[in-house]
Order: sequence, then C-alpha cells, then structure tokens
Amino acid sequence: MNPQGPVKTQILKVPRPFRLESGDTLEGLTIAYEAYGELSPSGDNAVLIEHALSGDAHAAFYHEGARKPGWWDPMIGPGKAFDTNRYFVVCSNVIGGCSGTTGPSSLNPATGRPYGLTFPPVTIRDMVEVQRLLLAHLGVKRLRCVAGGSMGGMQTMQLFADYPFFADSFVCIASTMRHSAQQIAFNEVGRRAIMADPRWNGGNYYGDVPPEGGLSVARMIGHITYLSERMMQEKFGRARKGKDHTVVFRPSFEVEHYLDYQGVSFVRRFDANSYLYITSAIDNFDLVSSISQVGRFRGEGRARGTARDAMKAKKGLVVAFTSDWLYPPSQSREIARFFSGLGVAVSYAEIATDHGHDAFLTDTEAQSRLVGNFLASLPA
Amino acid sequence: MNPQGPVKTQILKVPRPFRLESGDTLEGLTIAYEAYGELSPSGDNAVLIEHALSGDAHAAFYHEGARKPGWWDPMIGPGKAFDTNRYFVVCSNVIGGCSGTTGPSSLNPATGRPYGLTFPPVTIRDMVEVQRLLLAHLGVKRLRCVAGGSMGGMQTMQLFADYPFFADSFVCIASTMRHSAQQIAFNEVGRRAIMADPRWNGGNYYGDVPPEGGLSVARMIGHITYLSERMMQEKFGRARKGKDHTVVFRPSFEVEHYLDYQGVSFVRRFDANSYLYITSAIDNFDLVSSISQVGRFRGEGRARGTARDAMKAKKGLVVAFTSDWLYPPSQSREIARFFSGLGVAVSYAEIATDHGHDAFLTDTEAQSRLVGNFLASLPA
Repeated sequence: MNPQGPVKTQILKVPRPFRLESGDTLEGLTIAYEAYGELSPSGDNAVLIEHALSGDAHAAFYHEGARKPGWWDPMIGPGKAFDTNRYFVVCSNVIGGCSGTTGPSSLNPATGRPYGLTFPPVTIRDMVEVQRLLLAHLGVKRLRCVAGGSMGGMQTMQLFADYPFFADSFVCIASTMRHSAQQIAFNEVGRRAIMADPRWNGGNYYGDVPPEGGLSVARMIGHITYLSERMMQEKFGRARKGKDHTVVFRPSFEVEHYLDYQGVSFVRRFDANSYLYITSAIDNFDLVSSISQVGRFRGEGRARGTARDAMKAKKGLVVAFTSDWLYPPSQSREIARFFSGLGVAVSYAEIATDHGHDAFLTDTEAQSRLVGNFLASLPA
Repeated sequence: MNPQGPVKTQILKVPRPFRLESGDTLEGLTIAYEAYGELSPSGDNAVLIEHALSGDAHAAFYHEGARKPGWWDPMIGPGKAFDTNRYFVVCSNVIGGCSGTTGPSSLNPATGRPYGLTFPPVTIRDMVEVQRLLLAHLGVKRLRCVAGGSMGGMQTMQLFADYPFFADSFVCIASTMRHSAQQIAFNEVGRRAIMADPRWNGGNYYGDVPPEGGLSVARMIGHITYLSERMMQEKFGRARKGKDHTVVFRPSFEVEHYLDYQGVSFVRRFDANSYLYITSAIDNFDLVSSISQVGRFRGEGRARGTARDAMKAKKGLVVAFTSDWLYPPSQSREIARFFSGLGVAVSYAEIATDHGHDAFLTDTEAQSRLVGNFLASLPA
C-alpha cells in the first residue's frame, strides 16, 4: 500500500462461524479494516491500533477525495510515532459497530433482515478476538505494539493480558480497567435517551427514521464528559450566539449550539443500536475479573507460569491527561500498577492539558513524542 | 398555625396583573405557599425559605395523612435551626413551577387552556418579585433572614441584593452567582431530552400522555450531578441487581436501577415544561449583571448610596459542600467574596461530606448547627 496515495477501508469476510463470549454464534462475520505500511517477511513488525466508542477503521491518511484524514492521522504515517516506514499498522472497526464490521445494523443472513436487538451482546474480548482473526488472515505472527485510547485502551489491555506471547508492548491512553458507578451512570443515561425515543421502536427502525433525538442527546451527554470544565469555560463561557433569544428554548448560549451540532452530526454517521451495544461492552468490561474468570493468561499451549514469565520481557506505556475527568489519571495509575505487578516494565506519563478526555484525539504532539520514544526503546 | 398538627399548602390569588422581567404580563397569578409559626405584631420576625429546581412550598411538617414531611423539615420547626417558636417561616412555590403557583401547566384565563409555551419566560428575579407580593399580603415588613440551597440560593442572593433594606441576613447554600458553560451544558442536555420526545409536541401535551421518557432522562442527568462520584461508588460500585442480565439493555447495575427509579418517580410529580422554564431561569441567572442592568440596588425611594450603607449592617452565611461538583466550593467562595465586597459581614463554611450537591437536603445536622449559630448571632 502506498502511504502517500488515498487509502481505502477493506473488508474481510470470515468463512467460519464466530463464537462470542456470550456463547452465541455469528455466521458471515465481516471485518472492516485498514492497513498501512508493509508487513515484514517474518510477520513481526505489526502494530494494532484500537479505536474508541465512536471511532472506525479509518485511523490515518485520506480516503479518495476526502478533506479530512483518519482519526489518528497525526500519530500514524511515514516518520510519525507509529512509523509506517517501519511498522505494518492495522486498525479495524469493532464488532457491534456500524462502520463495516458486523453489528446490529448488519443483515442477519438467516433472515435477510437487520439484526436489531437479536444481535448478540458483545464484549471487549469479543472485539479483540475478531481482531485476532483479522491479524491471522493478514499473516501477522506477532505484534510489535497494541495501542489505543479510551475504549481503545480497554481492547489494548484485554489483548495484551489475554495473549502474553503475542504482543511485545502496549500503549494505553486515557482509559480504565473498569467503569465506576458514575461512569456507568453517564452511559446508562445515554442508553435511556435512545430507548425513550419512540422511533427506537425496540431496536427495529432500519428502513425508517432512526431515533435521532435520543441518539443526539446521548452524544451530547458524552461530549460534556469528553471536555474539561475549564476548556468549556474558556471556549464558550456564557457567550451567546445568534439573534434567536426571543424563541423560547432554542439554543442561545454558544455551548448549547456546540452540543447541538455535536448531537446532530453524530446521528448522520452512527447507529443507535451500536451505541447501546458498545457502551454496554464498555460498562461490562472488568479487566481483572475477565482474566481470572477464564483462567487466563492464554498460554497458547504453554503453561500459565510460562505466560507470567513472558510478561517480564514486555513493556507498557500508560498515558493520562491531567484534565480528563471521564477517565482521570488515578485510573491510569491503577493500570500502570496492575501491569507492573504482572512484571511488565511500565512507564506512566501524565500530559498537562486543558483538553480533557478528548486530548487523546487532539494532543497528538505530546503523545507522538511519548509513543515515539517508547517504541524506540523496545528491544530489537 | 399549630406547628404540631398537619399543615396545608395555601393559595393566594393576586388580584392585579403581574408584570415579568420580560415585559409580559400575567393575569390571575396564584401563589402556593406554606407558613409556620406566628408573625410578630411589627411584622419583623419572618424568614423566607427558597426552594430548589424540583422543590415546592411544602418545606416542613406533615400534610394530612402524609408519611413524609416537607423537604427541609429537619431544619424548620420548634427549637430547630429555623425556630418556628421565634420566626414566622414562609416558603412558596416559584413562578413557572408546577406545584400550585402559576406556571406553563396552568390555565391561561384568556383562553381557558393551559399556557404551554405561550407562558412567558421567567427569571430568578421574577420568582423573588412574586414572593414580595406574597410577603406584603402576609403583612411581613422585613425579613429576619432569606435562605435557600441550589436555585434557592440564587433567589436568596437576588432578593438580598435587590432589596438591601428588606432582609437582615441571608443564608446561601451550595449555589452560584452564575452558571459556567458546563453547568449550562448539563441543563441544556436535559432540555433537549424533553424536547426530543415526540410526546412533548411543542409543549402541547396537557390532557395527553406527557413526555415522560424525555423528562425522566433529564432527571437522570441531574441526579448524576447531584451525587458525588465517591458516594455513587460506595453506594453502588459495580454491584448488580435482579436476575435480568439476559434481557438486553434493561438496567442491570444497581446504579442503573437507582437512576431509573429517580427518573420514573420524578415524572409523576413534575411538569416537563416547568423543567424547561426553570432550568432556563437558572442558566440565565447572572447576579452581578442583573444588579447592574437595572440600576439596583433598589433603594425603595432612598438614594443608592444609602442602599450601600444598608449592606454594612447585614450579615450573610455562605455554605458549600466539599464533594459538591455541581456547585463546587469555589463558586460559594466567590459568593462570599462578592457580598463581603458590598460590606456585608459574611461567614463562609465548608461542610466535609461525601453526599455531593444533595447534601443541602441530607446533611441537615451540620447545616442546622451553622444556621442556628448564625441566626443567634444576628443583632436584635
């Protein structure tokens, strides 16, 4: 793939049934992905990028004719932190999503109709298992690094902990090992907003008007938690916009216009049922309990003790943002302590910023420096 | 009134048209209020209690046959902080509300139909002006104290600043002089949730099913901001409830059940349009700008300089809660500084509690001590 030309999201059709953690089985699973750079002959120079709640496989470069690049473009490319001259960089849309990988809006081959709520519940581990299928298909033998922010960090940790022989290192940014009650509460209100919209109709709205009102409210709630209070205050304060003060309950404050825009534009690109499935996967994620429940670490045939030994050759980078109140630095420090306890050589960095949780998408310069140095420090 | 027997909400019908800050006029204004204790012959022992967003006139004692007392009962009564053996304590429902005082769900006498969105916009100052009518009717010549928490604190400050000759003192708890962008944002998402519910129908839902889904989502958002993160974690953590894990997207975590209950029970007692009007009054409240805009302080015929002098004989108590992240202590300290700057003798107290913003309703023991001592310190 020529990293200077336009890129395209690819589709892998998985020929075998895919079994989820719930015990359910999916037929005809498709995986949407992008890959940049060249895989080495020995298949050991791959980097897996994990996207967040509303992300997709388009992590970097430009689609044909597009004016905006992928969501982590400043981090991925020739000479960038995830250097496509050195690494084979892969990113795929999560299962349960709505950007090419099978999810609730996909057609159920058994019925010819969209799954809706008949789609099985998905977990962060299911997301990782789907990526394992993709990587095997691409010929990846091991990962140089697995990396992601927010929900991407959860997948990163799950993969790294589940497969101690598979990834040399991880980069986990602005994430948590498990949601607190307040974090669950914010997601739950978003879900209720979607389900309270009559157009949601029990998840059967495909071919009709989707529950746009509910989904945009859910997105607005999310956006409040993505920005720091200070950034909101500096960006919007109590400034007003437009001349419509006389129209009752139309947006008047600038912050209202901002949230309104975020909600409306999200509805155009995201499926409401996917929002339910993915936020539930996030709320149900509990790294420590998930590892112990299934007798991980998966030793790929080797003994568990050997798996623990494997961890001691690994490195991890945990990054938090000072003003992130959705996943505050305390939760990232917990991640660092946990993997240190497993014997991984973990570096922890806190980036001073006012950009809140969103900083994992915006503060790419500071992250590039940290990630670049981290990857350079890995043993050959 | 016998403070030991059951109390009843009274209704005052205002015979004259009431002019609002918007310039609109309301005919047939009614004010729902309760009063406890006896007014002194000189009318100078009254205390005005101001309620918060979802409060009402029923501040203390029991209604006939009720199992729960008024919302601030531990603070008001014989021998309590607001001692009804000494003070004539008055509390009224705000204009724009839905608990007896005229609001959007009231019948417009001109049409015989509920106002809905034809109800004029209300402000915190309008709420205070309505209370002034009530107090005049009751024969109150001056207030010993005006007191309230949250939005009640906003009314408290507005009245105290607008009428420097009228109130001897104020108690302002867990409040702010103006909303930040984030505080506006939380309210705006609640309003959007209501308006996104098709049953809202542009505010015309009276006699039909109200927008219960939207209103309950708005209330759920509010409740997240009323509790501290720590309290939520200790109360709910990641505990699950019930056996319905298999039913997709039904509440499963205890915190989800809690929010669900709060949303559903709120819908039974509150009007969605009132929620829009009152939260907008809160967002638009800006004490300093409201005072300067209309050339306050109102001197009641006296010169402005005299009004400033009047402040120097006054006392104020500002209370904040350490874990209140909706109206954090920093905003209460700003209130204390502002009134100190006007010459008022202000005491500031921070109560250490995990109960978040809700502490103004729950931590009544600590508040009683502060308020009791404060009132005892007032010059005779």
